[in-house]
Amino acid sequence: MIDVKTARDLVLLHSAKPSEVLEVIIKDALDFVLAEDVISKIEMPPYRQSAMDGYAINGFDDTPYTVVGEIKAGDDDNPNLNIGDAVRIFTGAPVPDTANTVIMQEKVIVHGSKIILEESIQPNKNIRPKGEQIKIGDLALAKGTTIKGAHVGFLASLGITKIQVYKKPSIAIVVTGNELVNPGDVLPYGKVYESNGSMLTAVLSELGYKNTSVVTVEDDYEKTKKALNDVIQNYDVVIVTGGVSVGDYDFVGRALKDIGVEEIFYKVKQKPGKPLFFGKKDQVSIFGLPGNPAAALSCFYVYVYPLLKKSEGACNTSFPNVLMPLLTDYTVKGDRAQFLKARMQNDGVEILDGQSSAMIRAFGDANALVFLPENTKQVHKGQNVKTILLSVK
Amino acid sequence: MIDVKTARDLVLLHSAKPSEVLEVIIKDALDFVLAEDVISKIEMPPYRQSAMDGYAINGFDDTPYTVVGEIKAGDDDNPNLNIGDAVRIFTGAPVPDTANTVIMQEKVIVHGSKIILEESIQPNKNIRPKGEQIKIGDLALAKGTTIKGAHVGFLASLGITKIQVYKKPSIAIVVTGNELVNPGDVLPYGKVYESNGSMLTAVLSELGYKNTSVVTVEDDYEKTKKALNDVIQNYDVVIVTGGVSVGDYDFVGRALKDIGVEEIFYKVKQKPGKPLFFGKKDQVSIFGLPGNPAAALSCFYVYVYPLLKKSEGACNTSFPNVLMPLLTDYTVKGDRAQFLKARMQNDGVEILDGQSSAMIRAFGDANALVFLPENTKQVHKGQNVKTILLSVK
Repeated sequence: MIDVKTARDLVLLHSAKPSEVLEVIIKDALDFVLAEDVISKIEMPPYRQSAMDGYAINGFDDTPYTVVGEIKAGDDDNPNLNIGDAVRIFTGAPVPDTANTVIMQEKVIVHGSKIILEESIQPNKNIRPKGEQIKIGDLALAKGTTIKGAHVGFLASLGITKIQVYKKPSIAIVVTGNELVNPGDVLPYGKVYESNGSMLTAVLSELGYKNTSVVTVEDDYEKTKKALNDVIQNYDVVIVTGGVSVGDYDFVGRALKDIGVEEIFYKVKQKPGKPLFFGKKDQVSIFGLPGNPAAALSCFYVYVYPLLKKSEGACNTSFPNVLMPLLTDYTVKGDRAQFLKARMQNDGVEILDGQSSAMIRAFGDANALVFLPENTKQVHKGQNVKTILLSVK
Repeated sequence: MIDVKTARDLVLLHSAKPSEVLEVIIKDALDFVLAEDVISKIEMPPYRQSAMDGYAINGFDDTPYTVVGEIKAGDDDNPNLNIGDAVRIFTGAPVPDTANTVIMQEKVIVHGSKIILEESIQPNKNIRPKGEQIKIGDLALAKGTTIKGAHVGFLASLGITKIQVYKKPSIAIVVTGNELVNPGDVLPYGKVYESNGSMLTAVLSELGYKNTSVVTVEDDYEKTKKALNDVIQNYDVVIVTGGVSVGDYDFVGRALKDIGVEEIFYKVKQKPGKPLFFGKKDQVSIFGLPGNPAAALSCFYVYVYPLLKKSEGACNTSFPNVLMPLLTDYTVKGDRAQFLKARMQNDGVEILDGQSSAMIRAFGDANALVFLPENTKQVHKGQNVKTILLSVK
């Protein structure tokens, strides 16, 4: 049984490399990973830009200036100002090359076409220099950046409409277990409603992965083998839930072996998710997650998500990790590393009730996981703990 | 000029109430807000469930037991066990009513049809009680919950396929400014590329708001008035960018007044985003955000997002706020409250370079905003600051 760090390192080491590159228009680029360094083709701002409403002057002294014109945002005027000349100017407008400063309108007294300054002249005040934010040829966004909304705005501001991104992996979710019935159907004695398929589909969608399919398979060796063989041939990443523990009727492990999946690891010294399986066949990554929904989701966040990000070339492969003070005491049973469903609050992080692997309920309230390393016995209120941020919603 | 808290309180006070309710299937429910208390119609687990692979016994003593049968996950057997009887049982399978404990298979020695226990009997061990997670009639999810992936899993596990949610607001983004040209076009002197429309559309989409339109309008009073009138009649929320400062050529404020928009506030003692406008007409909320992209986005996160969540009935209307230690010193210019683009790291939060209102670049690296209250002069490395978490990606 390996430890959490080794397991995570092995997952990243064995993840497939991104291959296919797509061109997308920036409004469709959210959550994709850049496959190129994006270089600016313009200066930003593209001209000396007024940061205020006021007067651009060819200034020399605190004497009256003569207003000889007006430049609004969007105008292309570049008048020649003699010493003592001013132009009325507005925020965002181009500052004439012959102006050396902009005086805020609140600092000026207007007398007909003359203005008197109420502050002393400071060269280049209230002027955004050309290229202040970025210059032609500068790196705007680096290869490996996962595109967020703010990036879309930044790219648009540089006039960029299309970018090269990596194709996202296709993902099959294979749900096993004779005990499963579909939500909406009658629930006979001994059965439970299937939830891992819809849960993982929804969580993948939240994280930007829409190319997913759910395959349901009975606890039958031949059917399991056939289903796994099919998805391994047709998807980039396969996530199996259930069927990976040691019981006589868990066919997944045997089927994976028989179809030639190389085991990278099986079992991690953690709670939940001890019977986690990770393997590969050719370029396909295969996870065997526990059947219990909360254990499956925990393993998904900690192991599957980093593999997905790595396999599409992302620089950041994990959720943010921060140290936060605990709001509650917590006693650990056993010596395995713990991933505990938790909620960030104002003053720290609270470990939630209902940590059982079978209970998905607490994950609804959770926006973080608290990680406690192996052999932690007790943690106390106020103690800083490693907190993995999962959601801001 | 009002302060940040007053402005936020006024936004929430004046937000429209949710009206229309929709029924959605749970796989389409992500990011919607529940319009009903969801009550469980089943016990979860629905039967006494084995938490281990092992043997369910009618136990009385540490003597050999006779294995009289086998129950797999999904089976509906409920055999009558006499004292001294055991059944082979697997994780997730129903524990017979007549069994009082489950012994892990690792703690048993098998001799033909007899087993010898290697641990003493503890009643109900390795058995998940019926209804442990939730009982019939219990509240599963409360009205006002914003649905996340884990909730979809929880609802499915309860057999629920459809829920009642509030309709999301429709949002018009009105972009003003003669200086704007479309990305991809040639950039003449004095012009900049329009980015607020695509940026806000993308950020709204990340947050679950897909029903958005961008309207572009020239700096012309009549055209501005007509465009604003149109969107106020056709959308629930209107976000105008630009045109709200005091310059002679900013028509937005005048046009809003002339079409009967009630000003709730104009100008907030903050940086960026001082000239923020908020008003309403009938049930429509209208924001006037600064034209500078970074200032517009900051105001969006702090004011517009809470209004959107409130107007669709959400209990949580803001991003998580946490206290985090600063990784950097920072000196404040002026006395306004500050919203600073920042990045959470392992040990705290870093205030990023490039805080200018005009610079959207730093927002790409940011996953948080650091809030410094009015009259803060300096903050120091190690000091705890209020941090608003914006993204985990």
